[in-house]
Amino acid sequence: MSPEGISEQKLVYGEAGYVLEDVPHLTDYIPNLPTHTNPLQDNQAYSVVKQYFVNMDDTVAQKIVVHKSSPRGTHFRRAGPRQRVYFESDEVHACVVTCGGLCPGLNTVIRELVCGLAYMYGVSKILGIEGGYRGFYARNTITLTPKSVNDIHKRGGTILGTSRGGHDTSKIVDSIQDRGINQVYIIGGDGTQKGASVIFEEIKRRGLKVSVVGIPKTIDNDIAVIDKSFGFDTAVEEAQRAINAAHVESESVEYGIGVVKLMGRYSGFIAMYATLASRDVDCCLIPESPFYLEGKGGLFEFIEKRLKENGHMVLVVAEGAGQELIAESMRFMDHEDASGNKLLLDVGLWLSQKIKNHFSTKKNITLNLKYIDPTYMIRAIPSNASDNVYCTLLAQSALHGAMAGYTGFTVGPVNGRHSYIPFYRVTETQNQVVITDRMWARLLSSTNQPSFLSQKMVEDARKEEESPTQLLDGEEDSCNHNGVVLL
Amino acid sequence: MSPEGISEQKLVYGEAGYVLEDVPHLTDYIPNLPTHTNPLQDNQAYSVVKQYFVNMDDTVAQKIVVHKSSPRGTHFRRAGPRQRVYFESDEVHACVVTCGGLCPGLNTVIRELVCGLAYMYGVSKILGIEGGYRGFYARNTITLTPKSVNDIHKRGGTILGTSRGGHDTSKIVDSIQDRGINQVYIIGGDGTQKGASVIFEEIKRRGLKVSVVGIPKTIDNDIAVIDKSFGFDTAVEEAQRAINAAHVESESVEYGIGVVKLMGRYSGFIAMYATLASRDVDCCLIPESPFYLEGKGGLFEFIEKRLKENGHMVLVVAEGAGQELIAESMRFMDHEDASGNKLLLDVGLWLSQKIKNHFSTKKNITLNLKYIDPTYMIRAIPSNASDNVYCTLLAQSALHGAMAGYTGFTVGPVNGRHSYIPFYRVTETQNQVVITDRMWARLLSSTNQPSFLSQKMVEDARKEEESPTQLLDGEEDSCNHNGVVLL
Amino acid sequence: MSPEGISEQKLVYGEAGYVLEDVPHLTDYIPNLPTHTNPLQDNQAYSVVKQYFVNMDDTVAQKIVVHKSSPRGTHFRRAGPRQRVYFESDEVHACVVTCGGLCPGLNTVIRELVCGLAYMYGVSKILGIEGGYRGFYARNTITLTPKSVNDIHKRGGTILGTSRGGHDTSKIVDSIQDRGINQVYIIGGDGTQKGASVIFEEIKRRGLKVSVVGIPKTIDNDIAVIDKSFGFDTAVEEAQRAINAAHVESESVEYGIGVVKLMGRYSGFIAMYATLASRDVDCCLIPESPFYLEGKGGLFEFIEKRLKENGHMVLVVAEGAGQELIAESMRFMDHEDASGNKLLLDVGLWLSQKIKNHFSTKKNITLNLKYIDPTYMIRAIPSNASDNVYCTLLAQSALHGAMAGYTGFTVGPVNGRHSYIPFYRVTETQNQVVITDRMWARLLSSTNQPSFLSQKMVEDARKEEESPTQLLDGEEDSCNHNGVVLL
Amino acid sequence: MSPEGISEQKLVYGEAGYVLEDVPHLTDYIPNLPTHTNPLQDNQAYSVVKQYFVNMDDTVAQKIVVHKSSPRGTHFRRAGPRQRVYFESDEVHACVVTCGGLCPGLNTVIRELVCGLAYMYGVSKILGIEGGYRGFYARNTITLTPKSVNDIHKRGGTILGTSRGGHDTSKIVDSIQDRGINQVYIIGGDGTQKGASVIFEEIKRRGLKVSVVGIPKTIDNDIAVIDKSFGFDTAVEEAQRAINAAHVESESVEYGIGVVKLMGRYSGFIAMYATLASRDVDCCLIPESPFYLEGKGGLFEFIEKRLKENGHMVLVVAEGAGQELIAESMRFMDHEDASGNKLLLDVGLWLSQKIKNHFSTKKNITLNLKYIDPTYMIRAIPSNASDNVYCTLLAQSALHGAMAGYTGFTVGPVNGRHSYIPFYRVTETQNQVVITDRMWARLLSSTNQPSFLSQKMVEDARKEEESPTQLLDGEEDSCNHNGVVLL
Repeated sequence: MSPEGISEQKLVYGEAGYVLEDVPHLTDYIPNLPTHTNPLQDNQAYSVVKQYFVNMDDTVAQKIVVHKSSPRGTHFRRAGPRQRVYFESDEVHACVVTCGGLCPGLNTVIRELVCGLAYMYGVSKILGIEGGYRGFYARNTITLTPKSVNDIHKRGGTILGTSRGGHDTSKIVDSIQDRGINQVYIIGGDGTQKGASVIFEEIKRRGLKVSVVGIPKTIDNDIAVIDKSFGFDTAVEEAQRAINAAHVESESVEYGIGVVKLMGRYSGFIAMYATLASRDVDCCLIPESPFYLEGKGGLFEFIEKRLKENGHMVLVVAEGAGQELIAESMRFMDHEDASGNKLLLDVGLWLSQKIKNHFSTKKNITLNLKYIDPTYMIRAIPSNASDNVYCTLLAQSALHGAMAGYTGFTVGPVNGRHSYIPFYRVTETQNQVVITDRMWARLLSSTNQPSFLSQKMVEDARKEEESPTQLLDGEEDSCNHNGVVLL
Repeated sequence: MSPEGISEQKLVYGEAGYVLEDVPHLTDYIPNLPTHTNPLQDNQAYSVVKQYFVNMDDTVAQKIVVHKSSPRGTHFRRAGPRQRVYFESDEVHACVVTCGGLCPGLNTVIRELVCGLAYMYGVSKILGIEGGYRGFYARNTITLTPKSVNDIHKRGGTILGTSRGGHDTSKIVDSIQDRGINQVYIIGGDGTQKGASVIFEEIKRRGLKVSVVGIPKTIDNDIAVIDKSFGFDTAVEEAQRAINAAHVESESVEYGIGVVKLMGRYSGFIAMYATLASRDVDCCLIPESPFYLEGKGGLFEFIEKRLKENGHMVLVVAEGAGQELIAESMRFMDHEDASGNKLLLDVGLWLSQKIKNHFSTKKNITLNLKYIDPTYMIRAIPSNASDNVYCTLLAQSALHGAMAGYTGFTVGPVNGRHSYIPFYRVTETQNQVVITDRMWARLLSSTNQPSFLSQKMVEDARKEEESPTQLLDGEEDSCNHNGVVLL
Repeated sequence: MSPEGISEQKLVYGEAGYVLEDVPHLTDYIPNLPTHTNPLQDNQAYSVVKQYFVNMDDTVAQKIVVHKSSPRGTHFRRAGPRQRVYFESDEVHACVVTCGGLCPGLNTVIRELVCGLAYMYGVSKILGIEGGYRGFYARNTITLTPKSVNDIHKRGGTILGTSRGGHDTSKIVDSIQDRGINQVYIIGGDGTQKGASVIFEEIKRRGLKVSVVGIPKTIDNDIAVIDKSFGFDTAVEEAQRAINAAHVESESVEYGIGVVKLMGRYSGFIAMYATLASRDVDCCLIPESPFYLEGKGGLFEFIEKRLKENGHMVLVVAEGAGQELIAESMRFMDHEDASGNKLLLDVGLWLSQKIKNHFSTKKNITLNLKYIDPTYMIRAIPSNASDNVYCTLLAQSALHGAMAGYTGFTVGPVNGRHSYIPFYRVTETQNQVVITDRMWARLLSSTNQPSFLSQKMVEDARKEEESPTQLLDGEEDSCNHNGVVLL
Repeated sequence: MSPEGISEQKLVYGEAGYVLEDVPHLTDYIPNLPTHTNPLQDNQAYSVVKQYFVNMDDTVAQKIVVHKSSPRGTHFRRAGPRQRVYFESDEVHACVVTCGGLCPGLNTVIRELVCGLAYMYGVSKILGIEGGYRGFYARNTITLTPKSVNDIHKRGGTILGTSRGGHDTSKIVDSIQDRGINQVYIIGGDGTQKGASVIFEEIKRRGLKVSVVGIPKTIDNDIAVIDKSFGFDTAVEEAQRAINAAHVESESVEYGIGVVKLMGRYSGFIAMYATLASRDVDCCLIPESPFYLEGKGGLFEFIEKRLKENGHMVLVVAEGAGQELIAESMRFMDHEDASGNKLLLDVGLWLSQKIKNHFSTKKNITLNLKYIDPTYMIRAIPSNASDNVYCTLLAQSALHGAMAGYTGFTVGPVNGRHSYIPFYRVTETQNQVVITDRMWARLLSSTNQPSFLSQKMVEDARKEEESPTQLLDGEEDSCNHNGVVLL
């Protein structure tokens, strides 16, 4: 183990620059573990599947766009069932926990973990941990069966309940050990995956035969490496309602402005895709693209121009956009307003106020601004069909991996193929919109909004254009996040 | 040109088994064509995009799952804007035509072609050909402008109208020549793409500077090579309504059976994904998986079993399923019934009748069977957000290619990256569900329905398991059709 | 009792032509029944309600449009809680049964009966009879509690199951007697209400203290006297989807015709209101308005005209429309086609075939006809908000009446006020669209379709115009069926 | 005319307490106006309608629940076409204006006014006044034709634009006179109807032959006399989304509270009906029912109790609820916070903050409170089918009245029959939820929330119970606002 408590990387090198970033396995620290025939072998449904079991050597390439002789780059272990498993069916005692904010699809993932373990591997002992990490030591568990989870995918939210924080490594691992749990499925975002990584390390330290599997959850689609996160499609779809409403409201009045705040604390994917899908948006602001309000090329100037041309406009703002601007304007505020700060830190309310003030004081125009925050209405809906199918594959990938003895990994599609990815790869960076990529250019071109970039920034950006391969990689990190995106 | 009127393949070979299947270019048959600077260079929105222009050498790998030393396989030319273009903005005279049945997203593709040509390349002459291929010579055209297409993506159908057939190569090419059209965008299915290929050949034969671009349209998702076709997501989503209704209807009565017919003449993708997304389906029948009604392991036996267990069931059938069974039962019918054949060839009605007859005559049970055919209600809705974004990229890929002088190609995502694909690759085969793949196994496992395969078939299938690479390729053909699918 | 087994009418006469058509009461045939204080008296929620209890003299006027000195006409007993009740809370043993086809709102009515009895009157013994009338003697019952029904209003269908027929009076009353049930809530259509009436007669004959209450259910809105039936609003709303699809399909092709079949065996309310709400319909055919195909003023002529003008059209047909035409065309068919009759009796399929044949043989035009039958997709959805509130009031009206000792009655709003109506008034006639009323004229005017009436019919109709009062009454019967309808 | 500029009432008395509150007519102040045959007489669609024309004596009773010998009470003139009209088709020059906030159905009313005037009365000159009252003198008009309005009912908002205020009587009437307009259709709320009344008075003063017709618009359903206002049904339906989201969010976390603010500045109809339709709400606060936070029987106590029982709860609050509480808490706030008042006056934000503070400071509990404000998302959607039909009848009532020479009136259904109502009756009072009525009791009983009434209030309320007839009338005013409501 590395000093920081993070497992060392397992790397395998092949010809022409081929690198496999592998995931841990129970046998890394427990010698002589017996293996068993995979029960899927006798499963009716799989009887005619050719090559049902994933070959030990199968890997998924992270890089797809290549030149005739470019290096083959990073690969991940392919997800899927293995010929031999490290758990017998009646030996498995699994548990599932959901952490962090709501996201469409949580219930579908829970359902599919339970049904997959039961129907594919004959597992009958599955616990639901209630209320997030702290549920391991502070709350009751509930028994999960295929029957009890049968219809839950049609409901929003999570039947297990969720919470933020509550991560107490030793208490959690004690609880896992006490209950005799040997497969832990942890559904949650960035922070949760870090927690899962630490739990794995502690379990490894104690030498327990327990597989720890992370299932990445983030409605914002900001998890690195994987193509997209579950619930994202549903969220982009549902966001259309709010944008439509803003469009209708602004169109029906003079000086009408509709402002829609969408999810995205650190990344603007939902805002960007919702804008592209809608075509009714005049300006989209995201955390990755700093903007300014006053002066030439600023937001106010653009709003004024658009209002003059069309009489109305729609503005979409991701919740994490403009945080440095807000922070700055806070600094100059009377400290007696302290109690009100919370409210003002909502970028939507803050921006709305700023815009209204500017036009009423500087331009003597009373804007008809309508602010819409659909966040909770989006988070709480059930997942759509496309996310449902995605959640199924995610859950099955996860349990195949655990049964095969892999541990300390997270799952997700890489270039459309489900893969096992080491924790550190999804927690060390976040996926973000790269504003020097074509997807963002496409958005700028569709809204015709200013780029808010100074001449110097443009020149700097251009200068970096010399290392094509690296840039392509960068692009892949940022843009391959809706299944089908890159030209 | 090859004897069959099909252009020879353009193949480029690289190291380690690398093969590029390239697409035709205007310069293949017109020498000394002048090139121009791409006007995108001066576009505000693209000013900071690093590597905006696609490198001439960029290709997209068709194969993603690899072994350490497996060959690199087939690649396609990457889609996207090129440094140099072969048309000046005011020289372009484009036309758009839609052919075949309705599909969610047609209007979005039209809109994005028009807006993309106008805003990215400054093109102002764009014609809409009305009513499909025959519109080239039999009907009026309509002028398309960004303003006239601004809101059409919110409507179902196609504003251009559509039709089947009407393909008369020389009349069409005469019309193209007469009108001075030099970019032809043809949106349509399999047959339409074959027609486009022939039009391209004739244009090449005449030596015209006209780019012919196909945009594949099939709600069934049965187009080879590409990841998925537009409208498919929307269709799977909308199909949930019908399945839900069938579920409620069947649950509320004794011996209740809900039968839902979904689209899929030659491939069962919609039926398969709709079944996986819903979880309320007890049996899914698709063209790729032959089934039989009577006897052990047959459909009737399964229905009886399921009704005994649950009292009700839902059956999803793709329109092309069981055609050989229907044909056979027709042969034994009185020839005087000829006039009624049309109706009976609807597999949904036919199957419903067969099931009802079997249970009333053989089992003396009156089933409460409700048959639902949501086909037109699915086809006619507007595309959802995810398809809207997809249609944008598709349209932009198409027009970047035409501007860059490519011709005789179709566009679409391959492993998530948009590519230019030779016509013959998408018309020579169709994408189908491979029933010896894991996706179908997953479905069987989720519905617990019989596989309808005889012991011999299972054995035969297993025997073929010896050539792993080929199988992996086969798998890619069949399963990489929802962006994120394979374990 | 009258010879036909129908209770004699209870009529009360007042001044100026006032007539109250009263409903039976347990005391009609059981003397000296003790009464009790209504427990609502001590209910927190009702503590400040003025005049909470309905005055014994309150009645609801059936006629609303009056002249200065016109007679006051028929009145019904007003629904609502009474000061004194005839059941003690722990004495009540209620049961609920649903019969006939599905209709949005069934589960809401069940839920509200259970919650109302439990929360308002402290009743704890409530049985659900499974699978319709025959469930009384052939199937198990299920216990209903506020908790078990808490979420059912969000689901379509009926949790009790339903069936047609199965009415065996003595077996049912035996079962009621054996189980000690003393309040019977019967939810169902016309036929079901007739059955309820017979059950009431038998119970009265046996002298049992059992209240029999009918809750009228018909998605077609064809129940006489009451303003509208539950589920109707939801059905009209959902029908818009099918009409929209037909509109899009027909608009996108040459000679496009969309045919939508909507519910309405004997009355065309759904077709009429769906047509009025949509504005995309060119022709609406209902059972009440006979039509003909060939010749001047016929349907074919109109279709031809409309296609010439617009190139496409949408036709809505109620399932009971044109039955005499179908019957006639059957007579001339070869008797060997007998086996196919079932299919052909579907007016939608029959009409579609007739139209296609006419144009292909007589006009040499191949129509592009798309037939949509959304029936089951409409019936199976959950009720909308407006129907949910309506179902609550309906259920509460019913249980207040039973507690107050009324029996042998059905409930429903008359001019917006809930009333108790004798069974014979809702079973002796059906509510129908009166085609000589303004609502139908409004439809004709909005679609501009022919009235299909011969000159003679028009003249005959005009002649009848002499008895204004009677006509107004007729109008009220037919048109007051959407809460707000009459000009 | 009365001193206050309000026309005197036109009252007609009949037998048994019959009173007709009539509306003004052009002939009241212009003598010898010629009349013409109603062109509907020759309309195909109306040819067989019996009694198509409304009898001059037809009136609609406001009171429906009566005793055997109770007085007959107030009546209104029945709406509908008259035998004789006071305008010739080519003489009519109509205009339409929309004022105030958005409401589903505005476009449908506009559409139906235009189509009705054109198709029923052959009117060809119809102007749309843009942007509310001030559009009469400050903006351009747009020509409205059946073709230009054909599809607008499928869009939310108003194609004419709208604004608040801008009412300048003499400028407006000057503009009407200058343009030669003789029918003015004014769609708007309470304030707008008052404005319309003043315009009518000025027009009457000038002796102009101009009909002024008000069409009442209020999403809150707070217009007196009429059964319900258009858009209300749609709003209640759409509010379900927000409540569902609040339910899911609160259920998924510990101490979860979902707070939903709904429209209703002075009346809580939307909140009340949305709560009744949903069943997921634990507490509903409306302007009509004052509440308090602290102490016994207060809101905090109830929240604590509900959280203990269920762990989560949903609270619906109408925007006008608790204004006196907010005002009071403002008084005690530091005056330096003045600039922030606007935000705090939002009852939803204010209440959320209060609840969170109480539990964190007094109970040391960190609530998981999610606040949802769906207002703009509700207002901006298109009207549903039921509202569409209602809007048609409303528009037709309006234009039949204007053609018949009536003026200075507003239209709407009274007990389900469309009537002409004098302006003063809809502007002098507002419709409100009567919290001593059964509908509110029903809500209290369904949510089980406290009534927030002191013992004294309850006693006072009970004391008033002596005058039954008056109370029944009061009830009718308040509760007959959803077509079907009263038990």
